[in-house]
Amino acid sequence: MVLSEGRGGTIASSHSNAVAPDQRNMSLAERYAATRRLSEKLAEPLSEADATIQSMPDASPAKWHLAHTTWFFETFLLRDSLPGYRLHDERWPFLFNSYYEAEGARIARKDRGLIARPSLDEVHDWREAVDEAIRPLLDDPAHADLIELGIAHEQQHQELLLTDIKHAFFKNPLGPAMWRGRHAHEDEQAGGVGLADGPDWHQHPGGIALIGHQEGGFAFDNEGPAHRVLLEPFALRGTLVTNGEWDGFIADGGYRTASLWLSDAWDWVRRCNIEAPLYWRDGEHFTHCGWEERDPDAPVTHISYYEADAFASWAGMRLPTEFEWEAIARGQDSPGHPADGGNQLDEAAPPLPRGGHDLFGDCWQFTRSAYLPYPRFAPAEGAVGEYNGKFMAGQWVLKGASCTTVRGHSRPSYRNFFYPQQRWQFTGLRLARDV
Amino acid sequence: MVLSEGRGGTIASSHSNAVAPDQRNMSLAERYAATRRLSEKLAEPLSEADATIQSMPDASPAKWHLAHTTWFFETFLLRDSLPGYRLHDERWPFLFNSYYEAEGARIARKDRGLIARPSLDEVHDWREAVDEAIRPLLDDPAHADLIELGIAHEQQHQELLLTDIKHAFFKNPLGPAMWRGRHAHEDEQAGGVGLADGPDWHQHPGGIALIGHQEGGFAFDNEGPAHRVLLEPFALRGTLVTNGEWDGFIADGGYRTASLWLSDAWDWVRRCNIEAPLYWRDGEHFTHCGWEERDPDAPVTHISYYEADAFASWAGMRLPTEFEWEAIARGQDSPGHPADGGNQLDEAAPPLPRGGHDLFGDCWQFTRSAYLPYPRFAPAEGAVGEYNGKFMAGQWVLKGASCTTVRGHSRPSYRNFFYPQQRWQFTGLRLARDV
Amino acid sequence: MVLSEGRGGTIASSHSNAVAPDQRNMSLAERYAATRRLSEKLAEPLSEADATIQSMPDASPAKWHLAHTTWFFETFLLRDSLPGYRLHDERWPFLFNSYYEAEGARIARKDRGLIARPSLDEVHDWREAVDEAIRPLLDDPAHADLIELGIAHEQQHQELLLTDIKHAFFKNPLGPAMWRGRHAHEDEQAGGVGLADGPDWHQHPGGIALIGHQEGGFAFDNEGPAHRVLLEPFALRGTLVTNGEWDGFIADGGYRTASLWLSDAWDWVRRCNIEAPLYWRDGEHFTHCGWEERDPDAPVTHISYYEADAFASWAGMRLPTEFEWEAIARGQDSPGHPADGGNQLDEAAPPLPRGGHDLFGDCWQFTRSAYLPYPRFAPAEGAVGEYNGKFMAGQWVLKGASCTTVRGHSRPSYRNFFYPQQRWQFTGLRLARDV
Amino acid sequence: MVLSEGRGGTIASSHSNAVAPDQRNMSLAERYAATRRLSEKLAEPLSEADATIQSMPDASPAKWHLAHTTWFFETFLLRDSLPGYRLHDERWPFLFNSYYEAEGARIARKDRGLIARPSLDEVHDWREAVDEAIRPLLDDPAHADLIELGIAHEQQHQELLLTDIKHAFFKNPLGPAMWRGRHAHEDEQAGGVGLADGPDWHQHPGGIALIGHQEGGFAFDNEGPAHRVLLEPFALRGTLVTNGEWDGFIADGGYRTASLWLSDAWDWVRRCNIEAPLYWRDGEHFTHCGWEERDPDAPVTHISYYEADAFASWAGMRLPTEFEWEAIARGQDSPGHPADGGNQLDEAAPPLPRGGHDLFGDCWQFTRSAYLPYPRFAPAEGAVGEYNGKFMAGQWVLKGASCTTVRGHSRPSYRNFFYPQQRWQFTGLRLARDV
Repeated sequence: MVLSEGRGGTIASSHSNAVAPDQRNMSLAERYAATRRLSEKLAEPLSEADATIQSMPDASPAKWHLAHTTWFFETFLLRDSLPGYRLHDERWPFLFNSYYEAEGARIARKDRGLIARPSLDEVHDWREAVDEAIRPLLDDPAHADLIELGIAHEQQHQELLLTDIKHAFFKNPLGPAMWRGRHAHEDEQAGGVGLADGPDWHQHPGGIALIGHQEGGFAFDNEGPAHRVLLEPFALRGTLVTNGEWDGFIADGGYRTASLWLSDAWDWVRRCNIEAPLYWRDGEHFTHCGWEERDPDAPVTHISYYEADAFASWAGMRLPTEFEWEAIARGQDSPGHPADGGNQLDEAAPPLPRGGHDLFGDCWQFTRSAYLPYPRFAPAEGAVGEYNGKFMAGQWVLKGASCTTVRGHSRPSYRNFFYPQQRWQFTGLRLARDV
Repeated sequence: MVLSEGRGGTIASSHSNAVAPDQRNMSLAERYAATRRLSEKLAEPLSEADATIQSMPDASPAKWHLAHTTWFFETFLLRDSLPGYRLHDERWPFLFNSYYEAEGARIARKDRGLIARPSLDEVHDWREAVDEAIRPLLDDPAHADLIELGIAHEQQHQELLLTDIKHAFFKNPLGPAMWRGRHAHEDEQAGGVGLADGPDWHQHPGGIALIGHQEGGFAFDNEGPAHRVLLEPFALRGTLVTNGEWDGFIADGGYRTASLWLSDAWDWVRRCNIEAPLYWRDGEHFTHCGWEERDPDAPVTHISYYEADAFASWAGMRLPTEFEWEAIARGQDSPGHPADGGNQLDEAAPPLPRGGHDLFGDCWQFTRSAYLPYPRFAPAEGAVGEYNGKFMAGQWVLKGASCTTVRGHSRPSYRNFFYPQQRWQFTGLRLARDV
Repeated sequence: MVLSEGRGGTIASSHSNAVAPDQRNMSLAERYAATRRLSEKLAEPLSEADATIQSMPDASPAKWHLAHTTWFFETFLLRDSLPGYRLHDERWPFLFNSYYEAEGARIARKDRGLIARPSLDEVHDWREAVDEAIRPLLDDPAHADLIELGIAHEQQHQELLLTDIKHAFFKNPLGPAMWRGRHAHEDEQAGGVGLADGPDWHQHPGGIALIGHQEGGFAFDNEGPAHRVLLEPFALRGTLVTNGEWDGFIADGGYRTASLWLSDAWDWVRRCNIEAPLYWRDGEHFTHCGWEERDPDAPVTHISYYEADAFASWAGMRLPTEFEWEAIARGQDSPGHPADGGNQLDEAAPPLPRGGHDLFGDCWQFTRSAYLPYPRFAPAEGAVGEYNGKFMAGQWVLKGASCTTVRGHSRPSYRNFFYPQQRWQFTGLRLARDV
Repeated sequence: MVLSEGRGGTIASSHSNAVAPDQRNMSLAERYAATRRLSEKLAEPLSEADATIQSMPDASPAKWHLAHTTWFFETFLLRDSLPGYRLHDERWPFLFNSYYEAEGARIARKDRGLIARPSLDEVHDWREAVDEAIRPLLDDPAHADLIELGIAHEQQHQELLLTDIKHAFFKNPLGPAMWRGRHAHEDEQAGGVGLADGPDWHQHPGGIALIGHQEGGFAFDNEGPAHRVLLEPFALRGTLVTNGEWDGFIADGGYRTASLWLSDAWDWVRRCNIEAPLYWRDGEHFTHCGWEERDPDAPVTHISYYEADAFASWAGMRLPTEFEWEAIARGQDSPGHPADGGNQLDEAAPPLPRGGHDLFGDCWQFTRSAYLPYPRFAPAEGAVGEYNGKFMAGQWVLKGASCTTVRGHSRPSYRNFFYPQQRWQFTGLRLARDV
């Protein structure tokens, strides 16, 4: 996911039904306030130093996320739509623009960890000032689409704030915890379903499916236009691949068997000495609560596309396409309401995958689909047109939602995307097979 | 194109109708001999030094191509099927295995230019010895599929031999010529058709198309299985984008306009200071005959996917999908006989794109399709299973054939593939648009 | 200067006369306390975030300097000499050991900016605890040498703390200031002495000079053994090269004239697009008070060896050897008391070169001497033996002292050393010539 | 050694007494012819392909050496001194200028292996043409200095031709041999002298020594001016360190003991996984005759400065300074005639170190002296001034001569120089100690 959002002329209504249960009856202004508050809650356990450091170019400091989401509202709402508005600090867009070429030069991505100033307090003051200035616009229907977009954008950054700080803490040999309290293993486990057998598979007869955003409510531009796709018969497993199953892959020499891997993947495995998912050591893995014992029944996470593909080959199956995944999701009882179930982010508390039978939640699921434009896709005009379209090269689509995705932010048509070697997100896999 | 070939259990018959006109009535043994002879003819203008050097990791020395194709026949035919056969030199597979993990360790790709020994003469001796030893197998139907594969494999390397030596000569400041005689501009030019108008567009009404290898004859494993795909209405331009049209793109600041480029592409343009196609300087371009004046009506070649995509955006159109391209090709009068027309390789003579109305020939044409497996695709067992499948990550499909593709080697289902920044092949583009 | 200190069996007495005026009559315990206090004073203007970030691998975070100097005392004094002492936190040596192989594994140098934890407060608590625990040892003559070493070590890090944070602030586009208040240009300027003429040159007749540490008091191991060196007649300019003179070098195309530069230097200039000293833009330079106008009469600083050598070539002169420089310094009125004059660090206040006739102060001065062992040099046994000796390859000797060197830390035999491309220290040059 | 030579106004006479025995009574014209002939003899065993390839940026193709030495004579003699002379091919200086900035742009060093054209035959034709054109100048005293320089220059490249092709063949997994015939171990071995004891040490009482070129005859500019240096008493071992002694260093864990290594050296050992000298495997080493058994009594070669220094530390001794080495050499019976003894290059035949008591021959010997200018050194005016002076940064002085150094090319004042990690030359070490 590269963080931004396409304007989307397809946004039919700002009264989305795809929001979290407790947001269903909220006004746009209330949802704006709730989203902004959650970002601050998530950053609360962090010291000024925690919020400033950057552990790799892919990740950004927590303070940067707080500032960038504010820059987004200030730039595209206040600056562009509020007559007479003056920027809080005219030097800050250089620091907090992410990748919008149309918005001008900006600090190199790898240097975001050098922004000791402005301080965390100054960023919080900025957030308050923008929240105050934006208030008169929140009830004006003329701005509803952009505000929806800004909310969705900030929700994406909430997920990134959590995954980025996890990586930063992981790199500290002291293994600091963001929250206290060890996770207990769930007694009721995910299932013990065998890899390939058992009743726990969603069957699909094939045929023509309508894919892409088609309900009311908000969606990013890359989720449309809705269009028809022809599917062959297939099956999608009901549960995610677990840590225990991954242990089996390792024990069977999965990381040392060239024939299981794509050519680029095998280069990566050898060049980077990959031997296990990110954040694993012995029987433990690193969490927002520090180092903890791994639950063999919980879904495996923090794997790359390369690893997901190799595992599927090892299991004699394959990854689903994004269309297959979506077709199953749409066939479920409440396809439009994934927010009703699944392990997603409800509050500022430690996220942890735990397994189950939900399609949404726990982790993003790799598909074998390259991230490409849908037929007749066209990005929006102007800077927000850079939100999604320009990343359509070299990345892969992931479906679902993770335990760090804010509840209400997910839907069947949602397309997340990453490069095939990235794995600091909560990424996992769900097997598919031909029938 | 990464050079190898899938075994392909789908090969129904070794009497292919997709060969070049003058090969239609040839026996398999005759076609084997003709293919081997052509490789040697292509290398004839080269000195021992020319044939030894490697100008970049992507390219291989001409001597290496001569040896590798021989290794292929020796390994998969003679060694595996001829009882009592002893390798010509048991140390050479280390040098001339390309990327088959199942065939063991091998010299690093970037070091192929260090193989001063064996000498060119020794490689020619090896070729003769293998040709001699293989003779008894050529008429045996049990080996026909593998021999077809070996012929197709050597044809691919004939194209690479030509494009690789072109790059090597280009890197020499003296700009040596492989053949003499300047190309004259064709008087009858490609057309002067405007980018978006005129009658010269293939129209397609959309609907379900059957895609993939479906005729008799040889095909690589990645061309199947044949399967149905749903298309929306579209149009495909009858002619290729020309040098002159590309001059217009440059003059309009195409290489300096961020909004035309994918995000990875823009990084590439700036990091590598890309300002024109490979092999261009002023009004000239580098050819197998040295530096020559550019023909504005000839198709542009030696461009990357990134450039093709940016040009299409600039023109307000897009690249076709691989399915759209193939659907048009199948709708033509002689879809199974592209060998009958187009500018392809007929003999050891300087190749040069010249333009026209053929779908095949002149240059490979980028599609907007990522190189991925077709539904129910499975690579063959054993080493030859590494021919195509393991490269299905990060590359893009190209359709058609180029002026360096041996006549008879092309067909509508053929899928060539390259990384988005590569451009030392004869790569160009044909525009598409929604209707 | 790589930060550490050789034990030095040559330390005759811990009652050094080479300390700053106000430290002359202090006891060792008083000097320990003053040194520790100054480190904390220097860090006072920094926020938690300021003190945590690392702007390049050469530089370290301010918090790290505060911690590392404390680790030094805890490791080599308390742990090794105080029976029953328990480490404040046994996981911290991994974080705060700099480069002592004998002290075991440690965090990679480039990752020091990831140490958000322990917090700045925790580091301050550690400092207090160590200061408390060390008190009984301060008056014990058995430990005097190591305490002297620890004090000198912490003084070196005070200089680095200042130069490292300067670089970190420089990298922030906001250009934050560590202290307020613009520097006013000194009215009484350095001189306007021409490069090569005027009376302002120290003359030396040549002959045998005794070089190296030879007085009582503390010195690093690399300053000895004292030994004789044969000098040819030469002259050393009385003043440093100024910003204004450097402007002349630039205006004359100095950075574009290959013949002025060493071969490695010319590669560096072109590869890194070097066009001026570090921290320069237009008529300004970056200081601890932010961006300020440059004083043309102040000494140029933040140049590399490569630049210093090229400038000397341009001026038709050369850099002095370390022996020539020291011979002049020893011939001055109060050679043992450089602390009495010069622009050095006296308190936590903004340092800035200003020029004058002192050999010490303002900036470190490059010599044309490679940093190599003196005859019969042998490093000390054990971990502290790694302080200096192992860096004797590829670096150059600098003499004098800078405006960030604590007063009392300098002496004629002092040998600072850096790689030829480094320039984030206050480095400048003083010309020499043969006579 | 970077290959070229400073004009040297100090050249007193072109009738050198420092030439090989069989050249003593030759005229300059005869020596020119002999030198040119030897280069061609050395290249005789090489194929066109062998002579074209480049195995690493440090090394150059044999054909390039043949051409570059010819370019040197054509440029600085014919072009500059022969009225009306026209360049053989005006495009070739771009290819065969090595590093002379004053002579304009040139092909990147790493791309010398791409010069398939001109062919080896064309280069030989060029050599003949230049030899023919230069004939009238050979007896003219006005050009004697430059011709001496050109001869010395070509002799340096003869050594490089041999060491570069050795590396290229080593990189070929077939391990080709340049000459046939295995070396037999010498029966009379070097000595079995213990590392530190025995009578076989040259003693020196210290005092003032006159260093640098001081006899008649040719010398490079970096060997002067002659000047006095003060030495402390020391001893220099009579024999070189042997392969067998190096085996002891390895067996004792020398490559795994951090405390023996300089800091930069230890980084290099770990980053490059250094475990033995270059060209070693098991009990063998690679030679110009292919892989051969190692002679434990022969001198170790192909080591870096880093390794030489670590070995000396392990042995409890040190490397000599360049001044110490030269002082011993000058104290020998025939200091001016090293050509009379030692294992140097006499003809086109396989070179191999064999040990003995000569100071010259077998291998270049590292000193602990950085390569810096002697007092009052000034490079010559013009392009030839780039021969030596601009490399005086970051390299180390080596003394003596190797088995690939043409007899007559060595003398006590000769200063060879390399970077501390380079080891493809015949480099070894001779221990020193304080007394």
